[in-house]
Amino acid sequence: MKKFVLVQLLLMLGIGLFAEGLKSPNEQLELTFSLKNGKPSYQLTYKNKMVVKESHLGFELKEGKDLLSGFEVSAVDRSSFDENWQPVWGEWKEIRNHYNEMAVTLTQSETERVMLIRFRLFDDGLGFRYEFPEQGKLSYFVIKEERTQFAMAGDHKAFWIPGDYDTQEYDYTESKLSEIRGLMEKAVTPNASQTPFSDTGVQTALMMKSDDGIYINIHEAALVEYACMHLDLDDKTMVFESHLTPDAIGDKGYMQAPCSSPWRTVIVSDDAADILMSNITLNLNEPCAYEDVSWIKPVKYIGVWWEMITGKGSWSYTNLPSVKLGQTDYSKTIPNGTHSANNEKVKRYIDFAAEHGFDAVLVEGWNEGWEDWFGKSKDYVFDFVTPYPDFDVAMLRDYAKSKGVRIMMHHETSGSVRNYERHMDKAYQFMKDNNYNSVKSGYVGDIIPRGEYHYGQWMVNHYLHAVTKAAEYGVMVNAHEAVRPTGLCRTYPNLIGNESARGTEYESFGGNNVNHTTILPFTRLIGGPMDYTPGIFEPDVSQYNPNNGSKVRTTIARQLALYVTMYSPLQMAADLPETYAKHMDAFQFIKDVAIDWDDTKILEAEPGDYITYARKEKGSSNWFVGRTNDEQQRVSKIKFDFLTPGKKYIATVYSDAKDAHWETNPKAYEIKKYAVSNKSKLSQMCVPGGGYAISIIEVKDKKEFKGLKRL
Amino acid sequence: MKKFVLVQLLLMLGIGLFAEGLKSPNEQLELTFSLKNGKPSYQLTYKNKMVVKESHLGFELKEGKDLLSGFEVSAVDRSSFDENWQPVWGEWKEIRNHYNEMAVTLTQSETERVMLIRFRLFDDGLGFRYEFPEQGKLSYFVIKEERTQFAMAGDHKAFWIPGDYDTQEYDYTESKLSEIRGLMEKAVTPNASQTPFSDTGVQTALMMKSDDGIYINIHEAALVEYACMHLDLDDKTMVFESHLTPDAIGDKGYMQAPCSSPWRTVIVSDDAADILMSNITLNLNEPCAYEDVSWIKPVKYIGVWWEMITGKGSWSYTNLPSVKLGQTDYSKTIPNGTHSANNEKVKRYIDFAAEHGFDAVLVEGWNEGWEDWFGKSKDYVFDFVTPYPDFDVAMLRDYAKSKGVRIMMHHETSGSVRNYERHMDKAYQFMKDNNYNSVKSGYVGDIIPRGEYHYGQWMVNHYLHAVTKAAEYGVMVNAHEAVRPTGLCRTYPNLIGNESARGTEYESFGGNNVNHTTILPFTRLIGGPMDYTPGIFEPDVSQYNPNNGSKVRTTIARQLALYVTMYSPLQMAADLPETYAKHMDAFQFIKDVAIDWDDTKILEAEPGDYITYARKEKGSSNWFVGRTNDEQQRVSKIKFDFLTPGKKYIATVYSDAKDAHWETNPKAYEIKKYAVSNKSKLSQMCVPGGGYAISIIEVKDKKEFKGLKRL
Repeated sequence: MKKFVLVQLLLMLGIGLFAEGLKSPNEQLELTFSLKNGKPSYQLTYKNKMVVKESHLGFELKEGKDLLSGFEVSAVDRSSFDENWQPVWGEWKEIRNHYNEMAVTLTQSETERVMLIRFRLFDDGLGFRYEFPEQGKLSYFVIKEERTQFAMAGDHKAFWIPGDYDTQEYDYTESKLSEIRGLMEKAVTPNASQTPFSDTGVQTALMMKSDDGIYINIHEAALVEYACMHLDLDDKTMVFESHLTPDAIGDKGYMQAPCSSPWRTVIVSDDAADILMSNITLNLNEPCAYEDVSWIKPVKYIGVWWEMITGKGSWSYTNLPSVKLGQTDYSKTIPNGTHSANNEKVKRYIDFAAEHGFDAVLVEGWNEGWEDWFGKSKDYVFDFVTPYPDFDVAMLRDYAKSKGVRIMMHHETSGSVRNYERHMDKAYQFMKDNNYNSVKSGYVGDIIPRGEYHYGQWMVNHYLHAVTKAAEYGVMVNAHEAVRPTGLCRTYPNLIGNESARGTEYESFGGNNVNHTTILPFTRLIGGPMDYTPGIFEPDVSQYNPNNGSKVRTTIARQLALYVTMYSPLQMAADLPETYAKHMDAFQFIKDVAIDWDDTKILEAEPGDYITYARKEKGSSNWFVGRTNDEQQRVSKIKFDFLTPGKKYIATVYSDAKDAHWETNPKAYEIKKYAVSNKSKLSQMCVPGGGYAISIIEVKDKKEFKGLKRL
Repeated sequence: MKKFVLVQLLLMLGIGLFAEGLKSPNEQLELTFSLKNGKPSYQLTYKNKMVVKESHLGFELKEGKDLLSGFEVSAVDRSSFDENWQPVWGEWKEIRNHYNEMAVTLTQSETERVMLIRFRLFDDGLGFRYEFPEQGKLSYFVIKEERTQFAMAGDHKAFWIPGDYDTQEYDYTESKLSEIRGLMEKAVTPNASQTPFSDTGVQTALMMKSDDGIYINIHEAALVEYACMHLDLDDKTMVFESHLTPDAIGDKGYMQAPCSSPWRTVIVSDDAADILMSNITLNLNEPCAYEDVSWIKPVKYIGVWWEMITGKGSWSYTNLPSVKLGQTDYSKTIPNGTHSANNEKVKRYIDFAAEHGFDAVLVEGWNEGWEDWFGKSKDYVFDFVTPYPDFDVAMLRDYAKSKGVRIMMHHETSGSVRNYERHMDKAYQFMKDNNYNSVKSGYVGDIIPRGEYHYGQWMVNHYLHAVTKAAEYGVMVNAHEAVRPTGLCRTYPNLIGNESARGTEYESFGGNNVNHTTILPFTRLIGGPMDYTPGIFEPDVSQYNPNNGSKVRTTIARQLALYVTMYSPLQMAADLPETYAKHMDAFQFIKDVAIDWDDTKILEAEPGDYITYARKEKGSSNWFVGRTNDEQQRVSKIKFDFLTPGKKYIATVYSDAKDAHWETNPKAYEIKKYAVSNKSKLSQMCVPGGGYAISIIEVKDKKEFKGLKRL
């Protein structure tokens, strides 16, 4: 505290500068907190290179003096932390939480208000947040804007999507920061609900790379009772500033001390793999809030879904233009003949799931109300418990149970959130009564209460409410169109999935960029798992619906790789059973691949270009490798040194055929088996939009290697 | 239909005029519907005098062509209706619903959209509404504004309060219509939540009187799934136009056909008493929605309430500036020593209620959270089930039960409506478990979701949701700060009370106008009963709280009259038990007076001046009379001809003493007993702010008249 006393003295002498440093455990990252003329700021260096230049901190308030200036440092508290913890499910059996901390208590002398900024410096990055302790002069306040800067040291390359209060379902644009403004209009593609806010506004997690090869990722952790943060760029100075999602009257946060902001995170490395290996987001969240987690289990599932997404079938039971729940008597309506969620079909899906070892069958469109569910700002749109006439809840419940399979519930809210909350207890109870233990929820369209946005404080509160209430009923939640995750699954591990990005469905709505899945792990997945719904084996969507000309921009081999590269404890085999039946050899990988892991390694990684993961199945000696490749033909070279020395394995490699190509020949794949050990190496060609997947199964007896080539 | 065919023909010939008339059963009222150049309008006469001049009808829509013009008449359907029905509780045992109806179907040829206007003409007034049948070309639409006009025939005298999206808690101003603009600023007195919208905007029910002595009352009936209507005056033309309460984004109604607007009502008579006798509002509501109504019973109650309103006690248990439910451990806090809802006091109130025959004891401030409940836009403000440490739910439940009294629940929401709905099932279940069967709910302060108003469609939906959900638990509702009633208690008779006007509490906040209660029955009570909470026996509020200089602007005698003049199946004796103990002779009237009635007569009535009611107790031969008087000294002259001929009664008259005065001598009252029959007459002086109450009890034996003067 010697230094502190000194600078305080200097401050009192009128020099007006306070500065205090903090180093990461490995000393490669260094943070400096400064107070100049009463204004707080920070900067961050990595291996002595500037990552975040001096950046201001604080808040603009709706009423009263802002929390931006007029501060004095009243305390600096330092500490260190090092702990290993075990997630309920995850990429690693054990996660290390290791950081040095500096908590700076600031007092605004004029108002006697106290704001604390807590910095945690990990080896892989920085986390910091604002805290407002209980105090006499600051109790309730309304945030007009958070003014946290992230001043970049150069015109970095960025992988960005438009800042938007309502959706993240955009393709990523790869550009210089200075090019964002010019590319924004093109980047804002249509969505059912969207509210972009600035020509230079982008979303987090934002992935960047500097000219000198430093990878920088900005996101947030533990978004609770607060609005989602976007970043607005000053493209003259390359300074990002926080931009919170407003509420219906333009306010950005209603706060009551004691309280804190979410953590703002900056992950940094000169190795792209370190970004993917970082656990900062999870580490900055609170430990698990539940005592009993035995009911939370990863889920591999199929679903009555892709056929509606492609337009082959329909969610709705009739073609009525308008219905009213409880007033429309469906037994007297004319069925449209395309309703997918019917007894016969669901039974077939259950049979398929049981035969191939899936845990669950998602069924969308099972309940009344789909005729006019969308785009009508309809308040009482679904009741979440009333099935269409051709969906027999009890029969299907019993049938699924007899086959050892669960049906996965679907709660589309259409954004009508009051309506969902009104029915939530009954809806979850209905699930419990009928043996459902997981729900896919959806928030398509503009939010009701009208004026609220998907990513505002109001909805952030709702999403977590839905998760914690689900826990009371033993229900796992996979929320689509919800705010992007921020590591809350550590605290609430029944949040087993989210969408919050452009998923596979868009492959049927015109397609995703070919390199989409080489970016998502660096962006969307920084916050938590995504229900990306891979496994499309028929990339020509017109085979299902002649009116749909969309092409899935990926080879079948890459579809397999996604089960490894797109980490999630919830994995879907999204295509139709009859399509899988034509490719049972490739489908074997989906059956085999694990969904929970003891270990994860990054073998190759460059955002926008390629990623190769190796993961060790939970409680097993098996490994699985996945490689996703961009639009360039590339050769992947990997070593199997992650395998246990001395053990023997058979590797089954599912790769692109030589003449495969996402556009012209996506279905061409090869399957080869090899004998491998930890000395093995593989050089594997990946075609444009391709990739590969490998299952590596330990064998006890060398005889099983018979006839296999050794790698 | 002959006439109809003729005018259609004329229309087709290009004359462009369609007109069709409708008369009330007694033929005194005549409505004319016209379509001129495709624009619908109506006018209304009473005894051949113009009441509503030609007034346009229709809607401005958010999108697409408005529903104001371009119409053709495609059908006119006429019918008559005459039925007697029995309310669950009310002013009459039986109510006659008698009207002639004309339903005009309009088709907008350009859009093929259909709008029907249904007119019902009763002997006492007009009701009409818009209906949108199920149709191909109009399904969902958003109302930008309803454009219903009420064109007055002159510069009438009006009893008005400022149009406001959030409150009706204003004193009435009596002025010419042309004077509204100049008086508006003064009329808008402060409130916890208020949003006036126009210098000439006023609320309904609006009471008017023309220079030639016609009384006109404009209101609405059956406000369901629609925004509350205000009236905006063009003070050059004296034309009122409907002004709906907007939502957070400025929209005024989300509609889905088939649907309809609430009824717009115009009650008309040249006798003010007919306005009070009108049952148009109830008749235009749907019959009771509940099969079993045995659990719905009128309630006479006292409450731990007035002492907090006056500032003698507090709702909160501590003086902490800020608390968090579930985080603040009240057992470790310092009690403020003024918390009123404590075990000892509540027991005393229960004793008093039991001793004097009250059904229930309201207890406010029983639950955690009152320290910072108000004005903070606090979301999680109450949980509705957690008592303060000094309120023992189980003990008090059992104690009340042993005394044959119920505790009345209090659910203050602080306007945080999502929070209330989230806790509603548990809160009602808690009531059921603890023997509460009625709840006073409150919506003080601005609404959360922020941007919504107390009177918008969103909240209108909520209030009814709270009532129908309460019914599932056998709970009766008395909602304060909710939208003013529109006769919904016919359909949902567990809605036993509302505030929605300036109640007795304001007598402790500076006072109500002396003639306030001579206006309310003509305005606020047109829609349904009010929980006015009369019975203040200590008009000098400083006796309870030296810091409160407010004076209750009424004599004690008038306080008694209000139990008759302010009809409600829910009546409170609002003052403190210790105060009643000083005036047990006057208190006897509150003990005796009925709260449910077989018959009601208006003996004298002039809005703003005086009202005298006589009511016959339900299932009894007893009558009760009440007279409320304005700031003028007046002599009330009534006949007892409402009594059954040949029967004998003792009348106990509770009147102002000769030297009584609301301001200088409010406690001076006299109690006299008389022998009366249906031939009796009374001439009774009423002092400024005074009045009287009479109980008239049948006696079987003439001997009981001994010593009594005959009237």
